[in-house]
Amino acid sequence: MKKLINEPDQVLSDALRGVAAAHPSLAVNSVERYVARAGGPTPGKVALVSGGGSGHEPLHGGFVGYGMLDAACPGEVFTSPVPDQILAATKAVSSGGGVLHIVKNYTGDVLNFQMAADLAGDAGIEVQTVVVNDDVAVEDSTWTAGRRGTGATVFVEKIAGALAERGADLSSVAAVAREVNERSRSFGVALTACTVPANGKPGFELADDEIELGVGIHGEPGRTRSKLVSAKQIAEISLDAITSDLPLSGDVAVMVNGMGGTPLIELYIVYAAVADYLKARGVTIARSLVGNYITSLEMAGCMVTVGKLTPQLTNLWDAPVETPALRWGR
Amino acid sequence: MKKLINEPDQVLSDALRGVAAAHPSLAVNSVERYVARAGGPTPGKVALVSGGGSGHEPLHGGFVGYGMLDAACPGEVFTSPVPDQILAATKAVSSGGGVLHIVKNYTGDVLNFQMAADLAGDAGIEVQTVVVNDDVAVEDSTWTAGRRGTGATVFVEKIAGALAERGADLSSVAAVAREVNERSRSFGVALTACTVPANGKPGFELADDEIELGVGIHGEPGRTRSKLVSAKQIAEISLDAITSDLPLSGDVAVMVNGMGGTPLIELYIVYAAVADYLKARGVTIARSLVGNYITSLEMAGCMVTVGKLTPQLTNLWDAPVETPALRWGR
Repeated sequence: MKKLINEPDQVLSDALRGVAAAHPSLAVNSVERYVARAGGPTPGKVALVSGGGSGHEPLHGGFVGYGMLDAACPGEVFTSPVPDQILAATKAVSSGGGVLHIVKNYTGDVLNFQMAADLAGDAGIEVQTVVVNDDVAVEDSTWTAGRRGTGATVFVEKIAGALAERGADLSSVAAVAREVNERSRSFGVALTACTVPANGKPGFELADDEIELGVGIHGEPGRTRSKLVSAKQIAEISLDAITSDLPLSGDVAVMVNGMGGTPLIELYIVYAAVADYLKARGVTIARSLVGNYITSLEMAGCMVTVGKLTPQLTNLWDAPVETPALRWGR
Repeated sequence: MKKLINEPDQVLSDALRGVAAAHPSLAVNSVERYVARAGGPTPGKVALVSGGGSGHEPLHGGFVGYGMLDAACPGEVFTSPVPDQILAATKAVSSGGGVLHIVKNYTGDVLNFQMAADLAGDAGIEVQTVVVNDDVAVEDSTWTAGRRGTGATVFVEKIAGALAERGADLSSVAAVAREVNERSRSFGVALTACTVPANGKPGFELADDEIELGVGIHGEPGRTRSKLVSAKQIAEISLDAITSDLPLSGDVAVMVNGMGGTPLIELYIVYAAVADYLKARGVTIARSLVGNYITSLEMAGCMVTVGKLTPQLTNLWDAPVETPALRWGR
């Protein structure tokens, strides 16, 4: 295992020290293990809290800031955050408007966020939860009942965060978060596996000429293995899977996301193929992201996420955002 | 070779199609092969043109936009852009204020930019050139006489771009670009090699427990090979090399840059060690970047760049910028 780390069991704590040092806009609580906005809670605003295993950076800590999350709870690498951690973050950002938990659909995450929400409720904090489950590749998986939550998480956090910033109430923010999830689908492809530092060896094996179609963001098995194919074919396979599940028309947002070990030049090559595919079917890419937004450590590969827009969703997408990983328009 | 590409000889053209599709703020000229701002030249403003081999994305095309570059010329992967290409970009963005060429110190780049500058001069366009040569690892290298140009390029483009946006004249913009270069140093480390698509195999070999200290951004040999060491030790080796060349004090800007295949969580671990090192020596990190800004395809590893700030340079760093890869404050 070749990694830029100190000790495998210090990966999260060392990384959080780095995040704290690099971003004065963030308040990192290294004891309770959450990342919040440095300015403290915004009075009366619905607070958005997300989290999950580490190793998917910039998700979620990189999306904490104006227009997106109020706090993020990083678990150990590929491991759910614990209920106490989520509860501490929830309490820290709660300011009377209620708290929305944004949870990717992995069994551990769902259970731990649920327990934290119950405890927060006992403490008088109103919590609603949206579970993101956009990955069309498989039903049920290594760590999931139902579909996995992947790229749509970024869309949900951006759009719900924008609505919360405008002063909407908890039910409205939760409703738009669910709407974005329901209108979004993802499909991922791995060219290589990745290695969890504590394990020291790759989570799975792929031959030199093999790729995994429909891979999960922890390397969970996908639909099938295939020989390496072209970027154009990978775009087609991904979009065939997405559009056969959710017919597309009108305006969409597209993310071509790198899994961590794939260079940007390759993501643009995939994006060109995605744009061709959608254009040929009369679908308009109204907004897009190309880059590393939800990763799987050093895995090589990409994920395509498509979200159907409405005028309101586009307007919220365009709203100002100021986080380490996503910022525009303020 | 496992890559998200179509054909090796279409990598650049396919990627440029993707860039054009993803970024309405950019005008991609796929015939002449340059990327410029979509709005056309800014009348009277000094225009900044950079470029170099592809494979270092987001450098340089990702830095085209308000507050940074006016145009970028991408060569084939790890290959200099040609003079005609640079000349076309120079003419396209020239609007009477003169043009600054920002060139990383590689022999091919320097020659081709020089030829383009001469041709532009013949056409009545005033061009000045700054050659970036911040890499302290080695004197002379595979493709370079003198020191290689690496991470400081990002600082030069940001700060000179800001001054140009404020209406400074060509000599002033060139002077600040040279000042930033002279005050900046970089040192890079590779954990793995990378593969140029047209070659189909890695540019060099590293054993499973080996790293290359002082590597160049095309995989050029560095100072020495070593067994894998900790992130803390890598930060120390990098900063020892930098500070023995340029003593540091006061405020600095730091970039911990990923070489393309290293996950963000590892870069934050390195950044924490860099922050510790500098704090212990009384040096203040006033500004920082952590992420992939100048890459080497899918190489795993990192580069540390440090630039000594002045109040003016900090002010220009903070000026609004709006490019695909760097944006804040507008």
